[in-house]
Amino acid sequence: MIKNKNILVLGGDSRQTFLAKRLKDKGHDVYCFGFNLFENSELKKVSSLKEIKEKIDVLVLPIISSNDDKTVNAPFYDGEITLSDAISTMKPHSIVVGGNLSKNLRTLFFEHGHFSVDYYIRDELKIKNCIPTAEGALSIAIEEMPCTVAGSKALIIGFGRVGKACAKLFKALESDVSICARNLNAFAWAELYGYKSLEIDKIDNWLSKFDLIVNTVPAKILDKEKLSKINKNTLVIDLASKPGGVDFDNARQLGLKTIWALSLPGKVAPVTSGQIIADTILNILDERGDDPWQ
Amino acid sequence: MIKNKNILVLGGDSRQTFLAKRLKDKGHDVYCFGFNLFENSELKKVSSLKEIKEKIDVLVLPIISSNDDKTVNAPFYDGEITLSDAISTMKPHSIVVGGNLSKNLRTLFFEHGHFSVDYYIRDELKIKNCIPTAEGALSIAIEEMPCTVAGSKALIIGFGRVGKACAKLFKALESDVSICARNLNAFAWAELYGYKSLEIDKIDNWLSKFDLIVNTVPAKILDKEKLSKINKNTLVIDLASKPGGVDFDNARQLGLKTIWALSLPGKVAPVTSGQIIADTILNILDERGDDPWQ
Amino acid sequence: MIKNKNILVLGGDSRQTFLAKRLKDKGHDVYCFGFNLFENSELKKVSSLKEIKEKIDVLVLPIISSNDDKTVNAPFYDGEITLSDAISTMKPHSIVVGGNLSKNLRTLFFEHGHFSVDYYIRDELKIKNCIPTAEGALSIAIEEMPCTVAGSKALIIGFGRVGKACAKLFKALESDVSICARNLNAFAWAELYGYKSLEIDKIDNWLSKFDLIVNTVPAKILDKEKLSKINKNTLVIDLASKPGGVDFDNARQLGLKTIWALSLPGKVAPVTSGQIIADTILNILDERGDDPWQ
Amino acid sequence: MIKNKNILVLGGDSRQTFLAKRLKDKGHDVYCFGFNLFENSELKKVSSLKEIKEKIDVLVLPIISSNDDKTVNAPFYDGEITLSDAISTMKPHSIVVGGNLSKNLRTLFFEHGHFSVDYYIRDELKIKNCIPTAEGALSIAIEEMPCTVAGSKALIIGFGRVGKACAKLFKALESDVSICARNLNAFAWAELYGYKSLEIDKIDNWLSKFDLIVNTVPAKILDKEKLSKINKNTLVIDLASKPGGVDFDNARQLGLKTIWALSLPGKVAPVTSGQIIADTILNILDERGDDPWQ
Repeated sequence: MIKNKNILVLGGDSRQTFLAKRLKDKGHDVYCFGFNLFENSELKKVSSLKEIKEKIDVLVLPIISSNDDKTVNAPFYDGEITLSDAISTMKPHSIVVGGNLSKNLRTLFFEHGHFSVDYYIRDELKIKNCIPTAEGALSIAIEEMPCTVAGSKALIIGFGRVGKACAKLFKALESDVSICARNLNAFAWAELYGYKSLEIDKIDNWLSKFDLIVNTVPAKILDKEKLSKINKNTLVIDLASKPGGVDFDNARQLGLKTIWALSLPGKVAPVTSGQIIADTILNILDERGDDPWQ
Repeated sequence: MIKNKNILVLGGDSRQTFLAKRLKDKGHDVYCFGFNLFENSELKKVSSLKEIKEKIDVLVLPIISSNDDKTVNAPFYDGEITLSDAISTMKPHSIVVGGNLSKNLRTLFFEHGHFSVDYYIRDELKIKNCIPTAEGALSIAIEEMPCTVAGSKALIIGFGRVGKACAKLFKALESDVSICARNLNAFAWAELYGYKSLEIDKIDNWLSKFDLIVNTVPAKILDKEKLSKINKNTLVIDLASKPGGVDFDNARQLGLKTIWALSLPGKVAPVTSGQIIADTILNILDERGDDPWQ
Repeated sequence: MIKNKNILVLGGDSRQTFLAKRLKDKGHDVYCFGFNLFENSELKKVSSLKEIKEKIDVLVLPIISSNDDKTVNAPFYDGEITLSDAISTMKPHSIVVGGNLSKNLRTLFFEHGHFSVDYYIRDELKIKNCIPTAEGALSIAIEEMPCTVAGSKALIIGFGRVGKACAKLFKALESDVSICARNLNAFAWAELYGYKSLEIDKIDNWLSKFDLIVNTVPAKILDKEKLSKINKNTLVIDLASKPGGVDFDNARQLGLKTIWALSLPGKVAPVTSGQIIADTILNILDERGDDPWQ
Repeated sequence: MIKNKNILVLGGDSRQTFLAKRLKDKGHDVYCFGFNLFENSELKKVSSLKEIKEKIDVLVLPIISSNDDKTVNAPFYDGEITLSDAISTMKPHSIVVGGNLSKNLRTLFFEHGHFSVDYYIRDELKIKNCIPTAEGALSIAIEEMPCTVAGSKALIIGFGRVGKACAKLFKALESDVSICARNLNAFAWAELYGYKSLEIDKIDNWLSKFDLIVNTVPAKILDKEKLSKINKNTLVIDLASKPGGVDFDNARQLGLKTIWALSLPGKVAPVTSGQIIADTILNILDERGDDPWQ
């Protein structure tokens, strides 16, 4: 495992504290700038980026690295951090890791001789993030359904990462879980894990039977027609990223209780969320070895 | 199963709606008075108790039947319902079921020739109520802990009904669950269900290891000394009824995050909660048979 | 925890090896005599009981301590070990632990000034033994049913220790588990753990629906009449100790596949079985403290 | 769903009975020939293939369709069934489904104008077969390990279909399950399901820690060197198809208890196994629609 790198954690929110702490625990020298650093005196808070000029091996940017391709996204910093200031801290031929890196950003780092990796598109991060996402969905279901999850009938639309994680949790609480998917292999897996299966083409006749419907597919599956078949007492949770999988306007008109729950990991588990990013960064560093341009 | 009784559901809150609905679904004629009756047109809402004078076989009072032994507890009724008005609806030698029936109330019903049963002290109700209680505790843990429940270390103090239900749910979410109890049989059961065990006398050395501590014992176990050993980042949830099991004043001074969560069933699952009461009432009716004084 | 006692493990079968090993691992000096001691050179095998005259603090007898109240049950010893030889190894006022101690045996030890405890009637042992019992029953079900346990319909008769352990395991393998019991509390617990419930009085109409029936009640519940309602393809496993809960003669005549599985812990998990006894003995020693006659 | 086809089930073993029964239950006319047909009088047993000349829409061959590309594999038939006799029962332009169809066989059917599909390479069948495979492995572990599965440490090598199914079952019995795999995504999934992870490159130091090792990878991972690090009391189960993943000769010399368990579905669950094949055939028919050459 790669150790003893000088790492700068720059911008972002409270998750960066936990991320920074984890990187330090794994044997790196971690510098922090541009976010509220609480309860972690052992981290090196730098007062100005100039202090660490050309000292950094790994620059860590937040999940949304930049909103304008010019400054680092630092909502808890009382000022502006330009990307060129950020780059000035880096040793030559170093590595940048950030989330949602735009093509412009990646080009910028490339032109400065740095290798950049978007940790937010890594599968291991996406899989691990499904745990807090599913826990968040479960908590919403417990709070918002008038009955217990135990004994309820739940439909999970989609059997990808998030669908699998949700199915596991709802079944663990003794909900009667059905999976709605398209392909035979998904149904075979669903059976192995003890879920019922529902073909997406035949869903219409069944929608009224569920106490809870969780959508995980980023496509307008719950359109006006399908929504009209859902029981008024049913809770609909949409976990799909934009544009979401529910026609919310029509849902409102129909009086359905619909919750679009986004970015659950950061909300329900900022520590775990920061650690997941840190572990992904450590994986990236291990893969690159000592020479990021290997 | 006993059927076709005239049942009056009187006072209480929204749970009475679901309770009334369940009784009706099981084949009884259900009259409702003194609470907000929503979405259930098929129930017979009476406009005055005089309408049903001496017509009722079973009088159903709310969980807190009365606060003053004179009037029915009816917070959503815009007026006063005296117990003697309530009694006037009953056939001779009938049955009253209510929660938290005081000695005075029981004597009153007895003197009028009615048999009374407190459904709230029935074990099957207490056991079933542990499901919404544990779901509520789980939801609090998901929302209030900065990490996921998955992978966290949880200590459940007490292995009675609520302790067992909580242990099941937290383990189902992949928390590493330890049970704190006093007797060897509890530890043997804990092992069978896959939990770790901790003797209550040896708890002090271990309190700092947990991300979550759930108390279920109605005795001041988490006193000043024990609280001082708990980590600042640990969430403490107290599920014990009054006086609770946590010294909250000291917890506050120590800066511990402590949540005293009471009456979770009614809060997180009013429908289920009402149904549990209804099922308990049905059990009581079945046991009494056609003659309550059998 | 009590330590450094001189313990003699005497007679019995291979389980005594694992029992002796565990006692040694917990800090005692363990002497062994009268059984096949394999793979455990670190245990002190004595060649004659005379070697350890009046040296022993704790005498450990096997699960069936004696068949005749005169000699120790030692099926793997090529000779006879009298109880008086056994007693001669003990220090005055010492302790004997054994299984199935008869009144005669207890009187004998009492008259010699020794305190005796039957570990086999201890609840913590009985609870822990349910794990290997349920695993053994599960293995039989996997091997003997023509279908998978997953997706099968299983009826567990009785919801005591063994019933609870079996229900947990069969449900864990995605069997659809129903509990047959008599009281409402058992049904409430069954619901909490996600099992269905069946009143024992109404069982007759349902017996034909199950792929598997596991009896745990030591009373002839599955009599001729009930057996006649069971499907020919159903597997019946009887875990009840003598006289068992199945009318086996009638079952055979009806062509039902019936397995009476006794003493599963020793068969499927001799190591665990020995350790459970050892842990129970350690509990007994802790309770007695330094003076068994306290 | 396609119905009312004339289906001939030909050759194979007892599983074909359950397969045939399932096809009949789903609305087809099922003819049987060349295997022991027990307990299913409602199936049409034909006495000679000539009876059904050019009558068959779908020919169903066994899992091993043929051993010599000339005759149907029919170990329970007292004679020889040539493939040309089999083909003579089929309507023009019909469909053949069989397991392990050789290139020669497929060419033969093609030349006769029939469409052939190998059901045994279908993913949904392979996934579903993992349930009986994992149950069989679990039963072996219960029987052959001297301790209970509960509390044991199990290593599953490989996290494909069979590895996932085994991990689920062993964890369900409270075994402490570690997954040995190569890629980060497998580890992320393992974490989500509550298993520990072990990189295959670092396995050597850990092999001695396990009570049970289940290999699912069809490559000689457990070679002489790795085997030498395994504890003598550890049970090794190899579920990998030929050539298997264990160097059995060396394992024997080292005195390791090693079980190579093949074809578990047919052994532990012939009914389920037959039904899985039937369901796969029904999927194939649905996909082809009314014209197999669509």
